[in-house]
Amino acid sequence: MTSNDKIYYREGIPVPETPAAENSPDFWKKTTIVGKALPRVDAYDRVSGTALFPSDILLPNMIYGVILRSPHPHARVKRIDIAEAQKMQGVRAIITGESAEAKGITWQYRDQQVPLFDPHCRFEGEVVAAVAADTWYQASDAARAIKVDYEILAFVADYEKALDEGAARVQDKGNLLNEETYERGDIKKGLAQADLVLEETYHTPCELHTPLELHGCVANWERDRLTIWESSQGVYAVQAKIAQALALPLSKIRVKGHYMGGGFGSKLSPGKYTVICSLLAKKTGRPVKLLLSREETYLCVGNRPATTMRLKAGIKKDGTLTALEFECSGPSGAYPAGGAQLVDWLARDLYQCDHVRTSSKDVLINAGPARPFRAPGHPQGAWALEQMIDALAAEIGMDPVELRLKNIPLRSQARAENPPYTTTGLRQCLEEGAKEFKWQATLKEIRNHNRKEGHRKRGIGVGACLWIAGGGGPPSTVILKMYKDGSINLNMGASDIGTGTKTVMAQVAAEELGVNPQVIQIEHADTATTQFATPSGGSKTVPTEAPTVRNAAISLKRALLAMAAEDLEVAMEELEYVGDEIVWSKDRTKKIKVTDVSRLNRRGEVIGVGYRGPNPADKVVNPFAAHFCEVEVNTLTGEIEILRFLGVHDSGRVMNRLTFDNQVYGGIVMGIGLGLTECRQLDESQTGKLCNKNWHDYKLPTALDVPQAMTSLAVELDDPECNNTGAKGLGEPVTIPTAAALANALYMATGVRFTRAPISPMAVTRELSKKKKG
Amino acid sequence: MTSNDKIYYREGIPVPETPAAENSPDFWKKTTIVGKALPRVDAYDRVSGTALFPSDILLPNMIYGVILRSPHPHARVKRIDIAEAQKMQGVRAIITGESAEAKGITWQYRDQQVPLFDPHCRFEGEVVAAVAADTWYQASDAARAIKVDYEILAFVADYEKALDEGAARVQDKGNLLNEETYERGDIKKGLAQADLVLEETYHTPCELHTPLELHGCVANWERDRLTIWESSQGVYAVQAKIAQALALPLSKIRVKGHYMGGGFGSKLSPGKYTVICSLLAKKTGRPVKLLLSREETYLCVGNRPATTMRLKAGIKKDGTLTALEFECSGPSGAYPAGGAQLVDWLARDLYQCDHVRTSSKDVLINAGPARPFRAPGHPQGAWALEQMIDALAAEIGMDPVELRLKNIPLRSQARAENPPYTTTGLRQCLEEGAKEFKWQATLKEIRNHNRKEGHRKRGIGVGACLWIAGGGGPPSTVILKMYKDGSINLNMGASDIGTGTKTVMAQVAAEELGVNPQVIQIEHADTATTQFATPSGGSKTVPTEAPTVRNAAISLKRALLAMAAEDLEVAMEELEYVGDEIVWSKDRTKKIKVTDVSRLNRRGEVIGVGYRGPNPADKVVNPFAAHFCEVEVNTLTGEIEILRFLGVHDSGRVMNRLTFDNQVYGGIVMGIGLGLTECRQLDESQTGKLCNKNWHDYKLPTALDVPQAMTSLAVELDDPECNNTGAKGLGEPVTIPTAAALANALYMATGVRFTRAPISPMAVTRELSKKKKG
Repeated sequence: MTSNDKIYYREGIPVPETPAAENSPDFWKKTTIVGKALPRVDAYDRVSGTALFPSDILLPNMIYGVILRSPHPHARVKRIDIAEAQKMQGVRAIITGESAEAKGITWQYRDQQVPLFDPHCRFEGEVVAAVAADTWYQASDAARAIKVDYEILAFVADYEKALDEGAARVQDKGNLLNEETYERGDIKKGLAQADLVLEETYHTPCELHTPLELHGCVANWERDRLTIWESSQGVYAVQAKIAQALALPLSKIRVKGHYMGGGFGSKLSPGKYTVICSLLAKKTGRPVKLLLSREETYLCVGNRPATTMRLKAGIKKDGTLTALEFECSGPSGAYPAGGAQLVDWLARDLYQCDHVRTSSKDVLINAGPARPFRAPGHPQGAWALEQMIDALAAEIGMDPVELRLKNIPLRSQARAENPPYTTTGLRQCLEEGAKEFKWQATLKEIRNHNRKEGHRKRGIGVGACLWIAGGGGPPSTVILKMYKDGSINLNMGASDIGTGTKTVMAQVAAEELGVNPQVIQIEHADTATTQFATPSGGSKTVPTEAPTVRNAAISLKRALLAMAAEDLEVAMEELEYVGDEIVWSKDRTKKIKVTDVSRLNRRGEVIGVGYRGPNPADKVVNPFAAHFCEVEVNTLTGEIEILRFLGVHDSGRVMNRLTFDNQVYGGIVMGIGLGLTECRQLDESQTGKLCNKNWHDYKLPTALDVPQAMTSLAVELDDPECNNTGAKGLGEPVTIPTAAALANALYMATGVRFTRAPISPMAVTRELSKKKKG
Repeated sequence: MTSNDKIYYREGIPVPETPAAENSPDFWKKTTIVGKALPRVDAYDRVSGTALFPSDILLPNMIYGVILRSPHPHARVKRIDIAEAQKMQGVRAIITGESAEAKGITWQYRDQQVPLFDPHCRFEGEVVAAVAADTWYQASDAARAIKVDYEILAFVADYEKALDEGAARVQDKGNLLNEETYERGDIKKGLAQADLVLEETYHTPCELHTPLELHGCVANWERDRLTIWESSQGVYAVQAKIAQALALPLSKIRVKGHYMGGGFGSKLSPGKYTVICSLLAKKTGRPVKLLLSREETYLCVGNRPATTMRLKAGIKKDGTLTALEFECSGPSGAYPAGGAQLVDWLARDLYQCDHVRTSSKDVLINAGPARPFRAPGHPQGAWALEQMIDALAAEIGMDPVELRLKNIPLRSQARAENPPYTTTGLRQCLEEGAKEFKWQATLKEIRNHNRKEGHRKRGIGVGACLWIAGGGGPPSTVILKMYKDGSINLNMGASDIGTGTKTVMAQVAAEELGVNPQVIQIEHADTATTQFATPSGGSKTVPTEAPTVRNAAISLKRALLAMAAEDLEVAMEELEYVGDEIVWSKDRTKKIKVTDVSRLNRRGEVIGVGYRGPNPADKVVNPFAAHFCEVEVNTLTGEIEILRFLGVHDSGRVMNRLTFDNQVYGGIVMGIGLGLTECRQLDESQTGKLCNKNWHDYKLPTALDVPQAMTSLAVELDDPECNNTGAKGLGEPVTIPTAAALANALYMATGVRFTRAPISPMAVTRELSKKKKG
């Protein structure tokens, strides 16, 4: 660009566009609104029921869609007879792979393209046909009346046997989807340097995504334009995927997702149901609502794959980690989906260690495909690594907090060039957490307690982590509009997936503009009326969108200064924006109220456009955390009571203390689910079918499983390099070290290493009785 | 602004903002999409019923509002008893002036502020109370069950008697609201210079706005935020007025008006009903729909005031107009509303004339307030002036087309400094129109015809006009977004009031961007998600918004060039946008497809922001027109058959030939209503009440009253100064000279000057029999 590229508002005022605010010296030193424990801006809507979720959408003439799914884990559809179903009351349309509407329409699982209605059903729950009818019950009855002839095929449901000779093949190319290895240093040398080497195999269960709101959407066509209300983490991702499936221009698909009831990764992209719902709407000329049942979501919208991890670690007596050898495998399900993805990341990168070797195997089984699940791979990896660290500490007689502190990295060793972190708050998390938790004092207390007779034993445990992402980054575009009365409209494409994104963004805009957050109205998550954003996930929403919002606010302020300069007849550079006034910085003799600015009044509005700037080129932005917990075990019944939990987090600046706490507590609860209760049960030997596809049999932690004493601690390090708000991601680290900390506490209470999650009371009693016998 | 005020996209790319495209040499010489007779982009939605008008809105839990109105033209509310009504089935809320919700809430009629529920009811239809109930019928029954004690006051309904001694006072300060005079030259001198002076008094009726869709809205609160779906010409105007009434920040009122069923000026701003609906929704915590009945709209949403006009004109034998003396009066209704506003404008400004004197009186009567009605004042003024010109021509024996051509102005004489018009197409309208109409040949033919015996006489007539506005102007902001597949989203605050605005804007964007208009999706008329625009009216929508859209497209293109410059490693200035590609203008060896531009793909979108530039500082942009018609009169029955009508218009560039024709034909039909059928009938002597508040008694022209042979002719003069699209306003000129042209044709057919509109068959036979007797 040349210097004569001067850009003008058409009315003759140069447009002040988003300046280079990131990493700039105006990094907020003090904030008055950001960081406050502000109640959510949409709290009323959420509790009053005025908030409209996709499942609440009611449109005139709307009808209902239901999908008929394969009841077999592996089968081939030979023939579908819809004759009877078609005659049933209220039925408006039936679509199968043979229907004109479905011809040529495909679905993409990562790099694999399959027919939307694939006659080769590779998992229980694969779509076979779909019905639209006047009521859900009519559609459901008609779906059941469709007659399908299946050729039933041999299946494999146990991923640990999927690579065995003679195992059924999920796909023709075999069941090994992918194998990756990583190495730095020389693992043999590292092991040789060690004073002590431990090896252990760990297992984590397959967890099923359980957002409160089911997956689904409403679809409606106006001639060539499709509007979709989807329960989604990212409306633009839905738009792109459906545009691809239906071969439509992006402008012809409007996706709205203002409210949504949780996703945890499984709503980062749409499902086949979204395309099917759109086809039913097209065929019938009516709006169609298609919401899956809980059974369906458990079968097919995703899961955190189970993992098997073998970890061999070498350590010196002084606590120096010399070697980590990590092998893992996990199932992607029936299609490419990242079965063992990121499971090895903590082994690679959490602790200072010169010699590391990891390998990961993704395998195929006849089950629903995996999807990212809050901190993909990390809680699994932490389950292994953080128990191993605990075991090593015990063996060398070092405090486990101490051992971790001994090996804290300041650089990302697993990345090329070993870039430093902008901040590494792991030390502070451990130190301040141990202090807050009264780690040393409790240790003594527990030793005394456990020495006493009785069947109630106590233990404390610690787990640490980083999260591979959490720095956010481009792209994101946000537009802020100031109406002529000074009130503000914030236009942002990102979804608020229940975490408080809207609230934090209102705070950021209010902070920068010096206005009351109450006058900021937010429009978000609509591909037609808001700006591009990536899906909310990866703990990147706040660090991506908050800087963008701040940039938009800075852009808006500069536009206002340019306008006020006309009124005050002073150069814009000499003006200062001080909330509701613009003053002459020289001697404050000249000033004007924002709402009196002539051009603002003439134009009716002033807008600021913000773009997300790049992250630091040569540094890494990662959040860190340490979790501490105390448990009491009933050694007779195996029951585990969690007495208290402390989550300590370095996620940069805390943007809102209430939503921060919400995240921490929610993450801990989810980690408890991994450690103690959740587990997909496939009938691996007989039918291959999912046995616990409901809330009775799939055990989520309930209020009774959750410690009353949950507390959070924020390690707020100044991090002006991470972005212009200082915030790092939080949503995932909160659930990474949780289960491992629990297992470590259980070890202290029982002397048993529980290497297989979840740890049920049955497992506790079994291991304790083994130990007694042994 | 200083030169170092370089502005950057945060990612390091200077932002190419809206350049000074207006009046620039790149004025479109040729267009390939603009000007085409493209069917409306929303044609399907409009005819299929998928288009949602405010009256179509159905929200879960929605209830219905009904307003109780004063049945008296002048009365004071002494007591309201809601006890019985409140007990009725389904009733959710009743609001009167005594209710807490209504306390302190006022309504603004121009400079007069009144209580929302004013106990002093100054017109039939003034609001007295309001009910919300589960159904409209329940609300309606309950409203009728409210008992109101009125003190009935003396009224005045005849504006010609409102200033008489002893007339009832509508307001304490008396019934003369406003008197304005204008003078240039010396009227006495002008009259003295004349070879001939004529004087006549003309009357036009009060016309009632009759949009197909009734006035009304749906209101819904989410805590402190109000959403209104209003049938409106301008959502921002509704937002501003309701924010004022309810003392809310603008950001807390979202007004949507995507589709609406006509307004003609009466929906330029909301009504008391909008505030009342919002209060009912607040009180009940439910969405409330409040649509007026046709009776209510006829009573209170506006009208084109009746006028009495005395015109004295002096002329030389050679056709030089020497003097125009014009006096008019008209009623504003019970509140300030512009009763005689702009009625004198054509006398002031249409023809070259050195000596002009006008005066206008606004008077108050006990009737619903006036509102702007398609070309406020102009059709009335044309009724007088254009008949007078016809009479003068007859008297001096000159062809009426000739006489008009003789006096065509190139400057606006009525404005200070007499600025020239950017273009004055009046001459072309008359000349090309006369040719197209076969004026001379038809004259001869008619003379022959009328000489024959028989009761069917024929006549042709011409009328000319300008429209005081029609140039458009700031403010307007439009955002165009290109998705990464090259498809386009157009975001515009302006309403499409049925005239085809969306279609024209899609053409403008498509023209500038070289894309298929089909991939342009439009979001418009929503204060929360689209940009500021003034209401659609005053024939300014296209000349305001089209240049803004073009500026946004230019801005978008420049942003793309800046992005492509990175890929091609060529300075942005050397690049050219050629539809779907960007090429190196030097030798075309380097090029890139738009959809391959890296930053577009990384960012997910590129946006362009357009602002409406200023109009030429020292010139006036006005459209001109001439209408020609031929009628046949049954001299026995007085029936008038319009044989053909030709509308000839200088409205600059024709943006879409289909919507151009639609406007012309619609305007002619409306002008026929003024000339022949429409007239509010107040019972002036006995009750003061409106006698014809329904479609049976208020006579709109129907298909049987409209000539089958309607044609249009466009005088397309290059007008690069008017704005960067060359388009001037059309919506109002199309109805200005129509009625006068009809009256002139009737004169030729009958020899009678019909000075009082509408000309009913009864009036024709009465005048013909008078003439016979006389």
